[in-house]
Amino acid sequence: MARDPKYDILFEPIQIGPKTLKNRFYQVPHCIGAGSEKPGFQAYHRGIKAEGGWGACCTEYCSIHPESDDTMRVSARIWDDGDVRNLAAMCDRLHAYDALAGIELWYGGPHAPCHESRATPRGPTQIPSDFEINIHPRNMDKDDIAELQQMYVDAAIRARDAGFDIVYVYGAHAYMPFQFLSPFYNHRTDSYGGSFENRARFWRETLEKVREAVGDDCAIASRFAVDHLLGNLSIQVGEDGVRFVEYVDHLVDLWDLTVGDIAEWGQNAGPSRFFEENHEKPYTGVVKASNHTNKPVVGVGRITNPDTMVAIINSGQFDIIGAARPSISDPFLPKKIEEGRADDIRECIGCNQCISRWEIGGPPMVCTQNATAGEEYRRGWHPEKFSKAKNADKGVLVVGAGPAGMEAAMVLGKRGMSAVHVVEADKEMGGCVNWISLLGHSDGKENLFRGTARGLGEWKRIVNYRQIQLDKLKNVEVHLNARLSAKDILEYGAEIVIMATGCHFATDGLNPATHTTIEGADTTLDWQFTPDQVAKGEGRVGQRVLVLENEGYYMGASIAQKLAGEGKQVTLVTQASDVAGYMEYTLEAPMLHRDLHRLGVDIRTYTMLDKIEPGVCHTSNVWNPAQSETFEVDSVVLCTQRISDDELYFELRSDKAALEREGIESLYVIGDASAPRMIVDSIFDGHRLAREIDSPNPAMPLPFIRERRLWGDTTNDDFERQLLQASDVSAEPATA
Amino acid sequence: MARDPKYDILFEPIQIGPKTLKNRFYQVPHCIGAGSEKPGFQAYHRGIKAEGGWGACCTEYCSIHPESDDTMRVSARIWDDGDVRNLAAMCDRLHAYDALAGIELWYGGPHAPCHESRATPRGPTQIPSDFEINIHPRNMDKDDIAELQQMYVDAAIRARDAGFDIVYVYGAHAYMPFQFLSPFYNHRTDSYGGSFENRARFWRETLEKVREAVGDDCAIASRFAVDHLLGNLSIQVGEDGVRFVEYVDHLVDLWDLTVGDIAEWGQNAGPSRFFEENHEKPYTGVVKASNHTNKPVVGVGRITNPDTMVAIINSGQFDIIGAARPSISDPFLPKKIEEGRADDIRECIGCNQCISRWEIGGPPMVCTQNATAGEEYRRGWHPEKFSKAKNADKGVLVVGAGPAGMEAAMVLGKRGMSAVHVVEADKEMGGCVNWISLLGHSDGKENLFRGTARGLGEWKRIVNYRQIQLDKLKNVEVHLNARLSAKDILEYGAEIVIMATGCHFATDGLNPATHTTIEGADTTLDWQFTPDQVAKGEGRVGQRVLVLENEGYYMGASIAQKLAGEGKQVTLVTQASDVAGYMEYTLEAPMLHRDLHRLGVDIRTYTMLDKIEPGVCHTSNVWNPAQSETFEVDSVVLCTQRISDDELYFELRSDKAALEREGIESLYVIGDASAPRMIVDSIFDGHRLAREIDSPNPAMPLPFIRERRLWGDTTNDDFERQLLQASDVSAEPATA
Repeated sequence: MARDPKYDILFEPIQIGPKTLKNRFYQVPHCIGAGSEKPGFQAYHRGIKAEGGWGACCTEYCSIHPESDDTMRVSARIWDDGDVRNLAAMCDRLHAYDALAGIELWYGGPHAPCHESRATPRGPTQIPSDFEINIHPRNMDKDDIAELQQMYVDAAIRARDAGFDIVYVYGAHAYMPFQFLSPFYNHRTDSYGGSFENRARFWRETLEKVREAVGDDCAIASRFAVDHLLGNLSIQVGEDGVRFVEYVDHLVDLWDLTVGDIAEWGQNAGPSRFFEENHEKPYTGVVKASNHTNKPVVGVGRITNPDTMVAIINSGQFDIIGAARPSISDPFLPKKIEEGRADDIRECIGCNQCISRWEIGGPPMVCTQNATAGEEYRRGWHPEKFSKAKNADKGVLVVGAGPAGMEAAMVLGKRGMSAVHVVEADKEMGGCVNWISLLGHSDGKENLFRGTARGLGEWKRIVNYRQIQLDKLKNVEVHLNARLSAKDILEYGAEIVIMATGCHFATDGLNPATHTTIEGADTTLDWQFTPDQVAKGEGRVGQRVLVLENEGYYMGASIAQKLAGEGKQVTLVTQASDVAGYMEYTLEAPMLHRDLHRLGVDIRTYTMLDKIEPGVCHTSNVWNPAQSETFEVDSVVLCTQRISDDELYFELRSDKAALEREGIESLYVIGDASAPRMIVDSIFDGHRLAREIDSPNPAMPLPFIRERRLWGDTTNDDFERQLLQASDVSAEPATA
Repeated sequence: MARDPKYDILFEPIQIGPKTLKNRFYQVPHCIGAGSEKPGFQAYHRGIKAEGGWGACCTEYCSIHPESDDTMRVSARIWDDGDVRNLAAMCDRLHAYDALAGIELWYGGPHAPCHESRATPRGPTQIPSDFEINIHPRNMDKDDIAELQQMYVDAAIRARDAGFDIVYVYGAHAYMPFQFLSPFYNHRTDSYGGSFENRARFWRETLEKVREAVGDDCAIASRFAVDHLLGNLSIQVGEDGVRFVEYVDHLVDLWDLTVGDIAEWGQNAGPSRFFEENHEKPYTGVVKASNHTNKPVVGVGRITNPDTMVAIINSGQFDIIGAARPSISDPFLPKKIEEGRADDIRECIGCNQCISRWEIGGPPMVCTQNATAGEEYRRGWHPEKFSKAKNADKGVLVVGAGPAGMEAAMVLGKRGMSAVHVVEADKEMGGCVNWISLLGHSDGKENLFRGTARGLGEWKRIVNYRQIQLDKLKNVEVHLNARLSAKDILEYGAEIVIMATGCHFATDGLNPATHTTIEGADTTLDWQFTPDQVAKGEGRVGQRVLVLENEGYYMGASIAQKLAGEGKQVTLVTQASDVAGYMEYTLEAPMLHRDLHRLGVDIRTYTMLDKIEPGVCHTSNVWNPAQSETFEVDSVVLCTQRISDDELYFELRSDKAALEREGIESLYVIGDASAPRMIVDSIFDGHRLAREIDSPNPAMPLPFIRERRLWGDTTNDDFERQLLQASDVSAEPATA
């Protein structure tokens, strides 16, 4: 199919300094966990997007010098020739698809703890990071400033040599140049502090020097938070925001505009729970719309809808559609628009699981919607291409149409299995997503400060995308309202059986804190509830509610939000140091906290529910059990842990003779039925099994490429030796 | 000097199964951040200890299979031939010094989140981890159990092939075999759960299978927590603890005994603040002393004193002195005892900075006492050998004898500089350590549960060790009670000047939360204090005290502890989600929390101090500023941030003509005077400068070896290709 002409504007080329961007699709810098240490991951993840039609793809933040080292988090680095070599692999992949390669030169100052390099970061003023724990920067005189600027120049030259087309001087997320610009970070009284021109001096000079060094060969971009969202304590778009754009506009070939800082960067990478598509428009949209720049502008906002993209360009908001999360969720988004297949777009749900792994530090990125994200190189998975299974002649029965079951069925369908039957007990596909997407308070009211309570409605895209795909697959049949017994399954006639029967919440208070049930806990009683019962509106929750949250992710807090939003008096109890700990990693925590405060939820941390009696809950402090409290309640919600619905699987598995008799060659279990987990992992589990359904032992994942250094590796050793010579140290210690 | 005969017993060999341990010094498994991905780091860090006399050194916990992947934390792995190759490098280094190499085979179950492998961990019973967030294991039938045991066997065979002498089946810290043994984890009702024999079955069978596979070639060790410290909820030493030792004693060649679990493993790796040397004796000491085993026993307890070591062996507590932290702090501890140089031992201070980096996940290990820890390979640093500096003819003036200044002077002395003068304004050496070591509540009372409030007295070892070393160096002179002006320094006559003048606490409330001062904050008033004033007993703190804690490490909480321990009514306020966040990483947090509760400290998290008026403090919640409180106080302690005492440095640096005129060739700044930091980093900073004092630009650290994979590296590519073939996937995606 050809593309709809209304989308033509998205495919017009645009000049960025000395380079031509072939269309308006631009993958802005974002983290993936590859950095410069896993060059295959870096090259193939970006390369898949180039193949999928993105006109440019950038590295994540890329440290210019060991003095800015973000370990445990994974940044790219362009410190030396080894990094040049590793990042050149990414440039080569992108250039093979006529995409531009961008690099985001980064110096974090006090936000980079330098745990690997053990160096001391510099800052404009000696105030510790508001993001890291107890990292004070060192003061800089003018020589120090010039030295730091030279680090940018040296890195830019190395970047050009690696093959990059676009070189960023990165000043969003409150990293170095922004630290000079903002009075929140800069209390200097010399020519680099005080007045606007003085605060802008560092950034202006750095742009001049980098431009001088590589501006003929590369486009110079700058990522800039036009509003820090701290009011008059820092940069505001209507003041220094647009002023700075105008001031250095002649030095920049491309503006990449954002808002906020790193301490609360969920304001930029807004979770769908609190921010709608294109939510930064009131800030980033001002710059171009009000003619503060003559240069192309790119910006983001979880933009997945091609109509929104066209509107953004036509309205003069941006020239180029930037994407981080939508490009992870669907690397082929541009190509699908171009080919008139917009209904095939795998839209980002805004859950921020991708970001969570960067926040955790170390692990590779994951994506709820796209199980192949991060797997392009190490497992050789392509998001849109599926090899025909070697055992495609077999028939497959998938029991359960939740996220894992739908994903497995879809991939098996695409791999050309002769027949894939999905049998679901419920009246619709989607499993737990159907009620989870109802969660979160969604009164649409603004929080105390920023963000709007929207709920998890966008998570329903998990079901929608897969439903559309399954509908298109001729070899897949879905049967609803059918609950199968072991006998039904045995007699179904499939050679391969995949159990995807999900899980349920513990009804008796079994929990990870005490590993026991809770005295008096019983959600079969009409005043005690599991979270799904509350979400589905089963039963009547009373006015005074205690919610026990032992899981550490969104469930307990979401139930508390929902009930408090309905006007109930809610106490939220957790054994942990904070509610919903994992939401720190998804950047949802600050908005969640504000919302819980707005709604008057009474939060008790380091507290465990010991005993439930009719109308009364007994709690105690985990550090001092003698510090106990009682709460008079009308209802209790127990979000303690989940339990796999795996009885059917184990029943089948225990009778190998019956399986053989009925011609069932393979029996597998996936998703929550194997172990309750986050949706991102359930979908991965289903995808993994289907990708490897024809491997020697599909139940055990195949090995993946780790890109580790191997001892005795000749090339590596040569390189190490050069480094040793350069640094005048020896791995064999010198003797005094 | 020869060794004192009273220590002879420490140097007697002992048989461990088929292997002979040459003496009684044994580095038990501990994490360093090398794993199997940084083979040089792994080999050289362990190798230095072998050189320093340790009879055996072990890997950290070593995953047997991708199904147990602890990313973001760094474990070793023995998943494939690449890991065998990388870990063989460690074995080779150890064998070169006649030391045995041990490997700790590990499967974490739900405690291993598998963020890199994305596999699903198994567990005896489906209860989520009490250590990780929301990780549910999957249930196992007997086939699953046999498969898991085979993973141990396969890993043991690879370990033997790599050259390991001692193979552990690791069941301490609540990892897999312990999960079967303990009713806290095991709720099974089949033959692997219920009775003691049933709960012990998994571990016993695994030992049998591993022994059968490699027991002729390797010693079989087991690390076992003889008491879970959860009372009758789990294993207690007097019950199933000794019973299990007796039950499988015939299958084990070496017992490595510990206590506790991973969720609170500070009970094992006890910080000095709460635990004294050999603190596990009441638990681990029972096993051998009461004749429950016929096999050698090794155990730990931050044992640094050779007399304690002898007493431990003579008393029948242990046969072998285990060490993790003391071996990091001084890799040459055995050799120093052997050579009669016990006064040269660099004793561990029990600060647990080493552990903090594992907890953070990713960064290499650090050590407060031993700046070369983790730097053996990547920077080529040897803890005991120092090359003569190329510019040794120069004279050096070190201004300030805090941790950084002392360390720099010591290393420069050892590097043979012609003259090193240390000039200190105070009446003694040690800087901030002198008052920091007074901190922490030290009434010696037991906490509500475990651990004893001891204070930071052992941190004084930082000063003691360096003072002894400086005293021995003929080329180093220390001058106390001498505060130098810029003029004094210029005219001192040194060619190299190193400023190590420390830092001070902000007196006006300047802080990382708001980046501003606090209205009314002024510690020059007699009722407002900085932490050092309180520690030193300067001024009189009133009965009702508010302590503001913005740093996130031990300072604010320690002041609160101290004052509450003196009977004052203390409110501890922090903008963070918890007090003393970094103490989570040092494993001090649980005991700290119990102590703060015991002492009745009123903790206010997510709270900022907005304004101080005489007798009144005004605070507000960070998520809702309207949620404000007032506190009537007699005193306020401001632990907001520190500020470098760098005026003198910048004054000198600004007058280059004067420096040249006076013959000062180089001027450096180190430690807190450069940027306030943790003591571990100050000492590293001083050490680093001294190690590189003759490099081209000593102010800038030399590069270090990163052990990254290099793209296009032939050997690596070959290996990757083999992996690809084995796994039947291709880095070039297949086309459907």
